[in-house]
Amino acid sequence: MVSKMIPGFNGLAVPGPTNMPFAIRQAMEVALEDHRAPDFPEFTLPLLADVKRIFRITTGQVFVFPASGTGGWESAVANTLSPGDQVLAAVFGQFSHLWVDLCRRFGLDVDAIELPWGEGTPLELYEQRLRADKTHQIKAVLVCHNETATGVTSEVGGVRKALDAAGHPALLMVDGVSSIGCIEFNMEAWGVDVAVCGSQKGFMMPTGLAIVAVSQKALQARATARLPRCFFDFNDMILANKDGYFPYTPATTLLRGLRASVDLLESEGLEQVFARHHRLATGVRHAVEAWGLRLCAKHPKWHSDTVSAVLVPDGLNANEVIKTAYHRYNLSLGSGLSKVAGKVFRIGHLGYLNELMVLASLGGAEMAMIDCGIPIEAGSGVGAAVKHFSRTAKQFAPVKAA
Amino acid sequence: MVSKMIPGFNGLAVPGPTNMPFAIRQAMEVALEDHRAPDFPEFTLPLLADVKRIFRITTGQVFVFPASGTGGWESAVANTLSPGDQVLAAVFGQFSHLWVDLCRRFGLDVDAIELPWGEGTPLELYEQRLRADKTHQIKAVLVCHNETATGVTSEVGGVRKALDAAGHPALLMVDGVSSIGCIEFNMEAWGVDVAVCGSQKGFMMPTGLAIVAVSQKALQARATARLPRCFFDFNDMILANKDGYFPYTPATTLLRGLRASVDLLESEGLEQVFARHHRLATGVRHAVEAWGLRLCAKHPKWHSDTVSAVLVPDGLNANEVIKTAYHRYNLSLGSGLSKVAGKVFRIGHLGYLNELMVLASLGGAEMAMIDCGIPIEAGSGVGAAVKHFSRTAKQFAPVKAA
Amino acid sequence: MVSKMIPGFNGLAVPGPTNMPFAIRQAMEVALEDHRAPDFPEFTLPLLADVKRIFRITTGQVFVFPASGTGGWESAVANTLSPGDQVLAAVFGQFSHLWVDLCRRFGLDVDAIELPWGEGTPLELYEQRLRADKTHQIKAVLVCHNETATGVTSEVGGVRKALDAAGHPALLMVDGVSSIGCIEFNMEAWGVDVAVCGSQKGFMMPTGLAIVAVSQKALQARATARLPRCFFDFNDMILANKDGYFPYTPATTLLRGLRASVDLLESEGLEQVFARHHRLATGVRHAVEAWGLRLCAKHPKWHSDTVSAVLVPDGLNANEVIKTAYHRYNLSLGSGLSKVAGKVFRIGHLGYLNELMVLASLGGAEMAMIDCGIPIEAGSGVGAAVKHFSRTAKQFAPVKAA
Amino acid sequence: MVSKMIPGFNGLAVPGPTNMPFAIRQAMEVALEDHRAPDFPEFTLPLLADVKRIFRITTGQVFVFPASGTGGWESAVANTLSPGDQVLAAVFGQFSHLWVDLCRRFGLDVDAIELPWGEGTPLELYEQRLRADKTHQIKAVLVCHNETATGVTSEVGGVRKALDAAGHPALLMVDGVSSIGCIEFNMEAWGVDVAVCGSQKGFMMPTGLAIVAVSQKALQARATARLPRCFFDFNDMILANKDGYFPYTPATTLLRGLRASVDLLESEGLEQVFARHHRLATGVRHAVEAWGLRLCAKHPKWHSDTVSAVLVPDGLNANEVIKTAYHRYNLSLGSGLSKVAGKVFRIGHLGYLNELMVLASLGGAEMAMIDCGIPIEAGSGVGAAVKHFSRTAKQFAPVKAA
Repeated sequence: MVSKMIPGFNGLAVPGPTNMPFAIRQAMEVALEDHRAPDFPEFTLPLLADVKRIFRITTGQVFVFPASGTGGWESAVANTLSPGDQVLAAVFGQFSHLWVDLCRRFGLDVDAIELPWGEGTPLELYEQRLRADKTHQIKAVLVCHNETATGVTSEVGGVRKALDAAGHPALLMVDGVSSIGCIEFNMEAWGVDVAVCGSQKGFMMPTGLAIVAVSQKALQARATARLPRCFFDFNDMILANKDGYFPYTPATTLLRGLRASVDLLESEGLEQVFARHHRLATGVRHAVEAWGLRLCAKHPKWHSDTVSAVLVPDGLNANEVIKTAYHRYNLSLGSGLSKVAGKVFRIGHLGYLNELMVLASLGGAEMAMIDCGIPIEAGSGVGAAVKHFSRTAKQFAPVKAA
Repeated sequence: MVSKMIPGFNGLAVPGPTNMPFAIRQAMEVALEDHRAPDFPEFTLPLLADVKRIFRITTGQVFVFPASGTGGWESAVANTLSPGDQVLAAVFGQFSHLWVDLCRRFGLDVDAIELPWGEGTPLELYEQRLRADKTHQIKAVLVCHNETATGVTSEVGGVRKALDAAGHPALLMVDGVSSIGCIEFNMEAWGVDVAVCGSQKGFMMPTGLAIVAVSQKALQARATARLPRCFFDFNDMILANKDGYFPYTPATTLLRGLRASVDLLESEGLEQVFARHHRLATGVRHAVEAWGLRLCAKHPKWHSDTVSAVLVPDGLNANEVIKTAYHRYNLSLGSGLSKVAGKVFRIGHLGYLNELMVLASLGGAEMAMIDCGIPIEAGSGVGAAVKHFSRTAKQFAPVKAA
Repeated sequence: MVSKMIPGFNGLAVPGPTNMPFAIRQAMEVALEDHRAPDFPEFTLPLLADVKRIFRITTGQVFVFPASGTGGWESAVANTLSPGDQVLAAVFGQFSHLWVDLCRRFGLDVDAIELPWGEGTPLELYEQRLRADKTHQIKAVLVCHNETATGVTSEVGGVRKALDAAGHPALLMVDGVSSIGCIEFNMEAWGVDVAVCGSQKGFMMPTGLAIVAVSQKALQARATARLPRCFFDFNDMILANKDGYFPYTPATTLLRGLRASVDLLESEGLEQVFARHHRLATGVRHAVEAWGLRLCAKHPKWHSDTVSAVLVPDGLNANEVIKTAYHRYNLSLGSGLSKVAGKVFRIGHLGYLNELMVLASLGGAEMAMIDCGIPIEAGSGVGAAVKHFSRTAKQFAPVKAA
Repeated sequence: MVSKMIPGFNGLAVPGPTNMPFAIRQAMEVALEDHRAPDFPEFTLPLLADVKRIFRITTGQVFVFPASGTGGWESAVANTLSPGDQVLAAVFGQFSHLWVDLCRRFGLDVDAIELPWGEGTPLELYEQRLRADKTHQIKAVLVCHNETATGVTSEVGGVRKALDAAGHPALLMVDGVSSIGCIEFNMEAWGVDVAVCGSQKGFMMPTGLAIVAVSQKALQARATARLPRCFFDFNDMILANKDGYFPYTPATTLLRGLRASVDLLESEGLEQVFARHHRLATGVRHAVEAWGLRLCAKHPKWHSDTVSAVLVPDGLNANEVIKTAYHRYNLSLGSGLSKVAGKVFRIGHLGYLNELMVLASLGGAEMAMIDCGIPIEAGSGVGAAVKHFSRTAKQFAPVKAA
């Protein structure tokens, strides 16, 4: 919430919504408009085509629903699966848990591998399960690319390899809500069939759009999918989008923002966007190390470049840090969800972000931790990040650097 | 679409999205915010309570989904019904048709009474059907309060009377997308069980919120309702809303706008809002009469105070009028949908609107009709509206009038 | 003022401030910025160069002060004249009067020809005075290009001819506040030495910039000009602008808007902008004629394409019309100033404007006049304009017209 | 400039323009409006009255010009003095220099005491000069309350004491551009006659308003003041403001922002605003000390709570730090002006600011200094500020702190 109580800007360091660029704000500064106007397609057709590049696909289709990531999850399964279908998944955090929960509500038969929170997608177990499924009862494999609750990034390409190794035809569905537009996501190369994203993370926009990319193979699955669907029906979208329109009133203001978002991402360059996220995240991890604290992610291979879940020392309540940061310093840190509630605070480092914004979050976290009695040295974390950013600045500096 | 081609503001005279007040624009001019902030409930709890007054309910609950009206329809049935349930409905326009279509996709058994477009909900037929259903197989009765495609307003209270007369316990579900916040809607008095609205009509906001009010009786129906649901699940909303939070990331920017919208509606006063819509709509109808044209609505009792569908003379294509108005005069009129395509153009007169804005739309329609060879007298329609507005101005004039 | 009392947009039909395009609003939707940033000149240097094209000069310089048109007048005389210098001017409205008043306060010796309000610059009298001034005591000739108070446009080119005919070297200074960017203004061809404009008229921006174009000849006059100056000093501007900076903090937000304004004007094309203003103004004049009323401008050659001052019948108070329009219909008409107070109401028709916006103003004026007992026929004025706009639409219609 | 090159928000750490609160942005998100509207005074009269409280006066008058602080300086002298009048001033930085320069251009006889940059107003020398002026030839005494170029705050109350001690009737004129609304300014208690401010510092707004408070005594000086004036004439303002209007088109958009600005300052409370500035400034000074660097201000009594000018070690060019900060880290630091160019970089810490924003600026300065080879320890300055802020947080924490 935009605190009315403390002057100065809120330090928004949750893992989404992220900070919104002025270019996106400007783009949404329009009058409301007629979504059936004769020239509306001149705006929408290129937009829908261009969004595909953010997912790195040249085939298939991107759907933009006026919804959130959860709606994107729902669209993924409702358009491709039927009641009773088997689904392979793993649960190692709140969001991987919630997608599984959604599947079960829709009557799917989910084989959900439960893992300690802080681990990532178990590639070997996946491969075992897929090899064992000789009759191809598994219709879909779910992967939470970036578990926002624990700061764990899984290897999507590894799941593709497991599928291929097992010669298994299941659809590969990926929750990329907090990864797409931030860290490498190569939908076509990885053979992903459905990738789900929301507008309020890497796209740096307000919440309100579910952005879902779908492969040709997944599109064909509609023919046999018997789960009910209407609001999230790909069919209706395909028919209307073809001419640049939508089956029901689209959120045109947000579509204007999406145009600016795609342009921003492409003007920076996706590779540069990914490199920037990695460099900023590395600075955060140096800070955590300098504080003498540990991350929830149990192994460096799972370190997320978009969010770090920091474990507070035993006996201390992370929520106190979060509340202190918020009420005293106008800093919004992410709280621990479900199993890790009270154990971690999360620093979001994704979206429209630079070194200064990261240093502000780290400095704010330091003040809050000191206030709560966590024995860290003032300036240690920020200093570690300052060192890292300075040391790596030259190769990342813009053309004009002095 | 906001035309880039013609200077000056677009005349937005479609029946939604409507014109957006600056107060709403201002309210949405915020930074993105943390929807899990400790003080977020201080904003959301009063908001969710206050929205109930717009529906005129004191019990039950209002749900705000990041979606559109179509999503609201889906939430209505998915949370209360089970596959195979019987539903009574009538089809007399594109939107009454689409809700029925949605029900059928969700496996409901819809008795949809087909009527000529331009008529409204058939109260007597409804009562007959309900009386005949001795075993109460009909679980829900659908009413399209204001058929946006034809400019027809039905009598919701009459359906309640029919239900009561038949002693029938079916849920009464109303599509109030283009009526709520514009014309009288008295949910509690009329015993409506689910009322569906969107943000882009009477709420004068961007598209992106489905606003759904639900009675206690309909909430209890969740217990037995077996249609699958997750994104639109009332349960999850109830649990999270109780504490002022949401089950997934809410569209906070739009919620800020909703706060302003409710405040605007209440500061004008709902009765005044309704009276204003009636007076402006009457001016439009005087104009249509002065032009020598007819409305699609077949009887004055069905005249809609939010949208007028104007029939063009036989042999002429209404789409030519719409295209001319748009490309030549920057005026967005609503087109005829489906069965009435080419036969009508629609003038939306709802939301944030006053006499001047109506006169601009009428004047623009006159120019476009003249250009297309429709034999109307220049100034006749505008003049009729000017007369009506002047004649009725005193009792509607604000306190400060000279 | 943005009325809080009447729903719907205010009809802004005063002769400035004008309606603001969204493109300008978007451009000003930026964070505050450092006006000494290393790359600030990359923004300002092209901007200052491009503004010259709006004045139609290729030499000389444009200065942009954080001020209003009055400040522009002051800069014109303070940088070029000395106490006691003779100035030739004519007074035929409130704004031509005020510039003369300013000159006198600065100790200039103004020969101000007083004329009936409704007339324009007296070309023959000017030429007589200039021919009579054999010793060239007259240092500057002032012209109010468009007298906003009376809706009178004078012939600036005619004054140039008078100067040339007399072989007189006086500086030609023009108040183009309500003309530049709206009606033909050809500074170089007309040999204008100082042209003064503000941001809130043809530039379609908020008030806050005085935009002043100065010829080489006028720039050289600085050397001998002894009037004191600092805030409005051209010298300081020249020195700082050369490198893209300003002598004191510039209004950067408005400069961002100015960039968008120049781009908008040039993307429409100045000739098209002028033609649009002429066509819309002609529609207004047809309406006035249809109402049976007269303009303040005493001869068609003086008809202004940016503002029409409409005389109300004797015995009626134009202010009643204005107040009724404002309080009852949310329409802002311009009031009569000074000598014509109560006798005229003014309809501004300049800036970001199209047919629909003009029709709304005319319709609003009709309602207010009828309410005040002025015997006009409802729809007559609007109808006359509708006819004119329809008849002339084709050649003005955009490429895409049906 | 809003850099297009580096993602993330610009760190605006110049001493004005300052960061703009969303509440001010929202307030300016209006349509352009008629400044002669019948109800415009309902907005302006309370506003003009309320601004007086920010200056802490109950008598006299506040004038709001569409201009900048330089225009405010000009208004102060032009309305109260005559050519040849004696003025006492001191020069110890770029802005104290510029006001003296302006006075000289207006023909005033300025006794400008030249002091080393880094010192403040010389109270004893002032008293000597005033005592020596037995015939009261000195008509005005100028004080630069906060010299923005060097980060030096002078004691205005001390100048009042000097005047009183000398029994001298000269007007006391204060440049409060970078102090008012940030640090204690008690116009009435200090007997200040003219206080000049701009909108882009403590008022947290875009540049574009000169806000000038004038005592009764200074208002009376108009009667004898013979300097020419029109745009900045107090008389015209007094006459028009009396009824809530302005002598020429006011910058209404900025006036809307000013309303929000005054409300923000008063809702935080001026005393709290001053305490916040002091606490944040103290954190910055701790950082500078931890870096092993010195401030330009030569004595703690002159330390400014709104801007710190940091001296870089001999042989290094401060501009390199500034350019590196800007181009590499999107941080805008203030450059050294005139005599201290290349010797200092300035950190602005005024306006809408909190701990996090200060830490970001300090962290950015650290990175830039390290990159430029200034031997400071990474994290040392930020750490010192973190310690200070944490140590002093409780008494400054808002009511709701955990």
